[in-house]
Amino acid sequence: MIKIGICGLGTVGQSTLEHLIKHKKLIRHNTTTDFEVTHVADLDVTSKDMYGADIVTTNDAMKLVNNSEISIIIELIGGTTIASDVIVKSIKNKKHVITANKALIAENGDNIFKLAKENNVYFGFEASVAGAIPIVQSLTRNMLNEKISSITGIINGTCNYILDQMASEGLSFETALSDAKKFGYAEADPTFDIGGNDAAHKIAILASLAYKIPLSYNQAYIEGIQNITPLDIKFAYELGYHIKHIGITKENNQSVELRVHPTLVPKENILSQVHNVMNAILVNGDRFGSSMFYGHGAGGNATASAVISNVVEAINFTMNIDKSNLNISDLVGSEKRKIKDINDITNQFYLRIQAEDTPGVMAEITNILANEKISIEAVTQHEPENQKTIPIVMITNDVTGSSIKKAVNKIESLTTIKENIVSIRVLKLNE
Amino acid sequence: MIKIGICGLGTVGQSTLEHLIKHKKLIRHNTTTDFEVTHVADLDVTSKDMYGADIVTTNDAMKLVNNSEISIIIELIGGTTIASDVIVKSIKNKKHVITANKALIAENGDNIFKLAKENNVYFGFEASVAGAIPIVQSLTRNMLNEKISSITGIINGTCNYILDQMASEGLSFETALSDAKKFGYAEADPTFDIGGNDAAHKIAILASLAYKIPLSYNQAYIEGIQNITPLDIKFAYELGYHIKHIGITKENNQSVELRVHPTLVPKENILSQVHNVMNAILVNGDRFGSSMFYGHGAGGNATASAVISNVVEAINFTMNIDKSNLNISDLVGSEKRKIKDINDITNQFYLRIQAEDTPGVMAEITNILANEKISIEAVTQHEPENQKTIPIVMITNDVTGSSIKKAVNKIESLTTIKENIVSIRVLKLNE
Repeated sequence: MIKIGICGLGTVGQSTLEHLIKHKKLIRHNTTTDFEVTHVADLDVTSKDMYGADIVTTNDAMKLVNNSEISIIIELIGGTTIASDVIVKSIKNKKHVITANKALIAENGDNIFKLAKENNVYFGFEASVAGAIPIVQSLTRNMLNEKISSITGIINGTCNYILDQMASEGLSFETALSDAKKFGYAEADPTFDIGGNDAAHKIAILASLAYKIPLSYNQAYIEGIQNITPLDIKFAYELGYHIKHIGITKENNQSVELRVHPTLVPKENILSQVHNVMNAILVNGDRFGSSMFYGHGAGGNATASAVISNVVEAINFTMNIDKSNLNISDLVGSEKRKIKDINDITNQFYLRIQAEDTPGVMAEITNILANEKISIEAVTQHEPENQKTIPIVMITNDVTGSSIKKAVNKIESLTTIKENIVSIRVLKLNE
Repeated sequence: MIKIGICGLGTVGQSTLEHLIKHKKLIRHNTTTDFEVTHVADLDVTSKDMYGADIVTTNDAMKLVNNSEISIIIELIGGTTIASDVIVKSIKNKKHVITANKALIAENGDNIFKLAKENNVYFGFEASVAGAIPIVQSLTRNMLNEKISSITGIINGTCNYILDQMASEGLSFETALSDAKKFGYAEADPTFDIGGNDAAHKIAILASLAYKIPLSYNQAYIEGIQNITPLDIKFAYELGYHIKHIGITKENNQSVELRVHPTLVPKENILSQVHNVMNAILVNGDRFGSSMFYGHGAGGNATASAVISNVVEAINFTMNIDKSNLNISDLVGSEKRKIKDINDITNQFYLRIQAEDTPGVMAEITNILANEKISIEAVTQHEPENQKTIPIVMITNDVTGSSIKKAVNKIESLTTIKENIVSIRVLKLNE
């Protein structure tokens, strides 16, 4: 009988406990031995639902960590303080650990993988990236035997919901965000989601799985969706694009790109069809081509579903049925790659320039672009949205981040330009 | 050193061999022991590429099956005759087997799973359903711990290509099929693909994995795309649908639906956005919600990619690193369910009725529908496409297959109706 302890009974913790109790028979079919949740810890444990099961409760997670009867610790506290203690000490106590904690892995994963390997324990984190989408499994089993050229993902449901509502309902960012909070799709403090940090945590984990590099969250380029306007969504749509918040990692010439930012996605790219709070991850490999995984990236039940698949693996690990998890701890960090500076990364750019409607302004702008060797693939001049300026919208050819920055600064210094220029990266059809 | 033999060096066989040789170093990282392809068999082996490797060749697959040095047999001959012998005898000789052979599993899988279990060998078939899409892995690991309500898939690239070309280019079925042949997306004899049998093989395998039932291909309802016209694609589009060829399996009330047929898919359902030869499989579970897997369902490299992921599993199986594959052989067939008769299955239907443009015809039709308790959710009457008849297009409410059949027969017997009625099933948004 394998004893399981759950630390943290928030939404995901409660769903996990419920799933383990209500689907016990179904899960038991997939394990070679019996199991039971015997202990749970939560700061407010008395208010939590035990679903009729006989479980020892405590408000001190460390009691579970130090309980020698427990073999598997499920850490669902979140954050990088207590959760870190729980995970690190559990592993040192030779317990198998399952977590949904993307922040902790992205910021301290190298240490955790090393510890897991040294202590010969199972470390499962399927739920840490994109909830129910089995992307960790797919990258570490199915796709491990070939060269991954890129991973491109919609990996933050809050951002996707807000941008999707702005597009379909013409809402402002502020109204869409307020709706998202109302429906439970955004936290009370949504900074981490809309600022891009949450997506950056996830893409950092995916990059380490795909390219076997150390966790490199600290070197990721992070841009949120706060400055996206309905106007840009409309203009992008007219040019054949949806604006999505995308995480990208890509390898070329021994260096790895790692970035999250708003992106114009071509209508024909299936990622552009991912609506609402849904997540999707497109992986390109040299043999399998393009594969996309689509599903619920958050929410108690969906995230718990990923935790449960790890529970089965952990139980089978303890019974020596499946030790393949050790391979993951081995791989992450085994390769070294330079993380490419965003200024050196090449992209097409969408630019919206609000210019005074005076003769010669277009010539001034195009001269500056020409001097920076930036050519224009598409340009549209729109009716003025207000009395003062007209929006000039263009898509450039492939240019580096530093070139576009220089050109934008020069254009902004023109006397005919009164507002900041909007620049958004553009995804290619099969990127 | 694990010795591997490949039987069948067609497109997938050659890609598999190439991948195993060229990516050897990468693959070797993921196995705990070394491996080598030592033998290959093909009827026309002298014309095949060995990619510079030192390999024993033969035109007799049974020589590999009976070679005691070989641990893993990769069967890529296809079909249900010699391939069956190769697989069955290899398993009896205690060899681990990997195959991409959907026909053989769909038609004889129960026996093969039983044999694999009895002989304690690995049996891998990831490549048999939807090529590079890791759906076997996902269903048998990640999604195994909850109730799957339905699986809905675009699982035949030839059908999807033809319907997509008919929709985007306005081509006739015949022209689109001829294009598909030209580009290598359809076989010289495409009957099995366009008739739906290939998709039925795949959905039968998925149903057995999701519901643990014996392989039930023989009880599947199979309808191909031969009778789809550009006119119906156009009318469906006007009503908000794309016509796709879909495989569906679904469980309710202890019975399982198993069917493949052309289907009207709502534009908002992400399956409708799967274009060209791409495959996609949407799985609905009671906890994870909706997940979709999208990718290349055919082609040498994509299919070989799935074979290779099984090679790593098979090697790790021999080394006692990962025995979890045995669970699959255990599960398939462990549950019994009635396969629901298509006449008892409820769907919305698209109907196109070519009627004479005479007074009272609509009343006659709607009276017949009312008598069969079929109500109409949408109806459009179009301009006549020819001089004789006008197309009346409608979407019904949910009705059984037998009700619609009765109504269609009665309407067709009206003197004002001169052509056969087109009836196509309609998918719901989240189905």
